Amino acid sequence: MTKILIIGGVAGGASAAARARRLSEDAEIIMFERGPYISFANCGLPYHIGGDIEQRDALLLQTPESFKARFNVDVRVMNEVVSINRQDKTLTIRNLNTQENYQESYDKLVLSPGASPIVPPIPGIQNSRTFSLRNIPDMDKIIASIEHNQPKHATVVGGGFIGIEMAEALIQRGINTSLVELSQQVMAPVDSEMAAPLHQEMQHHGVDLRLGVALEAVFPSQQQAADELASVDEQGLELRLSNGDLLETELLIMAIGVKPETSLARQANLNIGELGGIQVNSQLQTSDPDIYAVGDAIEDPEFVTGDAALIPLAGPANRQGRMVANNIFGAGEHYKRSQGTAICKIFDLAVASTGLNEKTLQRKGLAYEKVYVHAASHAGYYPGAHPINLKLLFNPANGAILGAQAVGKDGVDKRIDVIAVAQRAGLTVFDLQDLELTYAPPFGSAKDVVNQAGFVAANSIQGDTRLCHSDEINQPSAEQLVLDVRNPEELEKLGAIPGAVNIPVDQLRERINELPKDKEILVYCMVGLRGNVAYRQLVNHGFKAKNLTGGYKTWLAAKA
Amino acid sequence: MTKILIIGGVAGGASAAARARRLSEDAEIIMFERGPYISFANCGLPYHIGGDIEQRDALLLQTPESFKARFNVDVRVMNEVVSINRQDKTLTIRNLNTQENYQESYDKLVLSPGASPIVPPIPGIQNSRTFSLRNIPDMDKIIASIEHNQPKHATVVGGGFIGIEMAEALIQRGINTSLVELSQQVMAPVDSEMAAPLHQEMQHHGVDLRLGVALEAVFPSQQQAADELASVDEQGLELRLSNGDLLETELLIMAIGVKPETSLARQANLNIGELGGIQVNSQLQTSDPDIYAVGDAIEDPEFVTGDAALIPLAGPANRQGRMVANNIFGAGEHYKRSQGTAICKIFDLAVASTGLNEKTLQRKGLAYEKVYVHAASHAGYYPGAHPINLKLLFNPANGAILGAQAVGKDGVDKRIDVIAVAQRAGLTVFDLQDLELTYAPPFGSAKDVVNQAGFVAANSIQGDTRLCHSDEINQPSAEQLVLDVRNPEELEKLGAIPGAVNIPVDQLRERINELPKDKEILVYCMVGLRGNVAYRQLVNHGFKAKNLTGGYKTWLAAKA
Repeated sequence: MTKILIIGGVAGGASAAARARRLSEDAEIIMFERGPYISFANCGLPYHIGGDIEQRDALLLQTPESFKARFNVDVRVMNEVVSINRQDKTLTIRNLNTQENYQESYDKLVLSPGASPIVPPIPGIQNSRTFSLRNIPDMDKIIASIEHNQPKHATVVGGGFIGIEMAEALIQRGINTSLVELSQQVMAPVDSEMAAPLHQEMQHHGVDLRLGVALEAVFPSQQQAADELASVDEQGLELRLSNGDLLETELLIMAIGVKPETSLARQANLNIGELGGIQVNSQLQTSDPDIYAVGDAIEDPEFVTGDAALIPLAGPANRQGRMVANNIFGAGEHYKRSQGTAICKIFDLAVASTGLNEKTLQRKGLAYEKVYVHAASHAGYYPGAHPINLKLLFNPANGAILGAQAVGKDGVDKRIDVIAVAQRAGLTVFDLQDLELTYAPPFGSAKDVVNQAGFVAANSIQGDTRLCHSDEINQPSAEQLVLDVRNPEELEKLGAIPGAVNIPVDQLRERINELPKDKEILVYCMVGLRGNVAYRQLVNHGFKAKNLTGGYKTWLAAKA
Repeated sequence: MTKILIIGGVAGGASAAARARRLSEDAEIIMFERGPYISFANCGLPYHIGGDIEQRDALLLQTPESFKARFNVDVRVMNEVVSINRQDKTLTIRNLNTQENYQESYDKLVLSPGASPIVPPIPGIQNSRTFSLRNIPDMDKIIASIEHNQPKHATVVGGGFIGIEMAEALIQRGINTSLVELSQQVMAPVDSEMAAPLHQEMQHHGVDLRLGVALEAVFPSQQQAADELASVDEQGLELRLSNGDLLETELLIMAIGVKPETSLARQANLNIGELGGIQVNSQLQTSDPDIYAVGDAIEDPEFVTGDAALIPLAGPANRQGRMVANNIFGAGEHYKRSQGTAICKIFDLAVASTGLNEKTLQRKGLAYEKVYVHAASHAGYYPGAHPINLKLLFNPANGAILGAQAVGKDGVDKRIDVIAVAQRAGLTVFDLQDLELTYAPPFGSAKDVVNQAGFVAANSIQGDTRLCHSDEINQPSAEQLVLDVRNPEELEKLGAIPGAVNIPVDQLRERINELPKDKEILVYCMVGLRGNVAYRQLVNHGFKAKNLTGGYKTWLAAKA
């Protein structure tokens, strides 16, 4: 009879426990959770704060009792494992209700401790109006603070998933909200030009967005001395930012990121990777083969390079938990690389990504090309179509898909899912052209956004199109000329790239002699389609040319 | 200078013309269209009739003038090609405005004639209140008839895409509508148990659905003699159905299907396939290498088997048009097999499919297994989640994906797209387990419907689960016992499979001795999840068992 101990009762741990029981009725399975809840919907926490999820109970997916009845797992909440004793294969556990320690032996141990919010050593940050959000008690405290203090203003520090979701939740509750982010963009998984519409969306909904700014110190409100922090309870906070601004606020949410929870693993001398996560092999074993680890606490191999990466996402955690149970019972399954496919709702927009972004490709020195497509979420003539902005990164030598990002009101999840499957399957941009996706006017287009991205990328690799990007068109050389092929009304209404000559695409054939044959023509239109038609005309008439991928829309976003 | 003639100015033809121009400024390109419009949104026609698409102009995506200006293509509408003269490589064309014939020579010819509605030889069907819907003039006639006659009742014959969309359009216009379908289900691309919720949805929205019934004859209303059909204009129609019913109606839409338009190809002695479509090779050449053919008129190789199939869908037509232009200029591209991925909106539901359905797998004698998953379109605790019913067909020997079907209010397109990409890429059901799809509560679940289908299918192949289906559980042998593991309240409220013993899954461990060890236990729950937990308990306790995939929900649908 195998005795399995599991540390952590949320995504990965709970998945491992349930799967282990399905595989064996005999196994003894004990799951330790230091908090009061297991299997709670951690991704739902901001939505309960914001009011979208009305019932708190909806977040509690399982209880110790339901888990016992269904899976015969001995769930011990409020029981914190304080040490792993590898030599005798036991754990020392503290019952947080009784404050007594006790021991349990194991045959196999599963670590699913998760990650913890990074709380930087900022002066004054330890106060009664500052919170992070990782679990149900955190959420309860934030709601209690809102209900008790009725804040008129809140500040979120950090523009990642939780920071963005919290800013939206606070705005939904009618609280004026500032979001402070150290870098020049929110949502680090996407590149800056893809984040630009997110900034607009947040500002449009009233978020006071402060990019490129750090929180330096926290004081009690009304510039009282730092040693009077006790008055925070009544008076709120004053934040000092790195640009010198002072910000009066009544609620502070710290959401600058999470770090793997590795204290137990370190204490037990398990190998820790360079990124600070628990190292596991492809069967998800730590450096001790009887100890498995899953979820936010571990380092995963990133899909494109195989390099170690921290990927604190629910999907991988759940699948890893299931796989560990399989492997405990001898399945010998190997965890495949992680793409880090993710999505975030930002008011009426969604932003999603998979694979590597351009920043990372540059940092790793990998060869890449990129294309942008702006197309409708479904047939433009059917009501409710919204533009999707898709960025596709690929290997210019062989068309391998390196990553993709998309922003829009509708259908963003679908397009990134489609590309994530294609990438995982080893399809190339050439294959994206041929994907047969569902089409009827309410759902898509006969040539879907993804097909179109495949066309543009394949054209580029095959030499049917030479692409240019914002950086090149912003600083044309003396041997280059910038040509705007939109209609004059579009230029008047929306502006144009400085220095561009305007010949509408439908007049280009008759006016082509107005252009110099000795210069390279950098063509652009609104999104890249007419630009490509013009580009092909020019090249077929013997001109040198390039087409701005994504057109003026992408250029505007890159400039923002 | 290549001279390219194109017959047909909609999806495939227009795509070929535009791409050909992008590849060559020199080519002479003439596109003939016998109707008054090119590049119209044929998939949008029912939605203009129903009022969702308010502006008729929205359906006219290009005009001859815009096509000339943008692509320098000589577009000749109201010009019908009357013969292909292969020996001298010319066409004879009739100008329908002048009724004069003339000739044009070609180097390369592209046939994109589309398909035409099948109008069966039913007595009385040629009358002023009976229409089919394939193009803008058809649509205009239907709208004119509605506006002139103000019908209180309409009848649609045929439950495919157009028939269903037309029934919805007519209901939206406030017209009582009957839908008459010869087979026992609408939407032939899916299997009958997947069509059952579509029938409910249509009836719920007021469609008078008549399945298993054929239209036998059409009379003028009020049972006047058949030779008085002239009175139809004033008095409407009486329909005689194969079950003897008489149906008074004022508007009749014939939508029983389409057949490839092959008259020109036949006249030119091009090879026609067994299914009645133009035969092409993988480069989309007909039996005459200077004549290409694309779209609804040709036979495509079906994805799983490579067998010829008729796949009259917009996506393949558009891509084929583009590919033909590439091949005319020497690209040598090969058309890949078609999965026939398709989707249809049915009031608030969507139904979609890709690959082969079970009916076809049975007919072709191919080995298959099937699983059903009922899961939420996104996290159940976030508002707006709706159930998705997914059927996955796979090869039980190696897990190859054979086909998939889904029905639901939201997210159906995404799941079928994901599976379509996986199938095209050659992924198996094992790979579906590992797909990393976008997850946040508004968009999906940490274990998506598709992942879950992968889990169930992989469990089945690996022997972790033995599945049973409705036919087996409906007629258990003397050595079998049917076990319902739902809670008694569910049985009271929703009913149960006749003869089932009820032990709720959470009581099974303590009551397991109530079950006979010498019988095979056929377990079921509502959707299959609890059934699997119970199945694993039983097997791990030494019982023989099977789990009903899709549970009571699928059983109910199969019975409907």
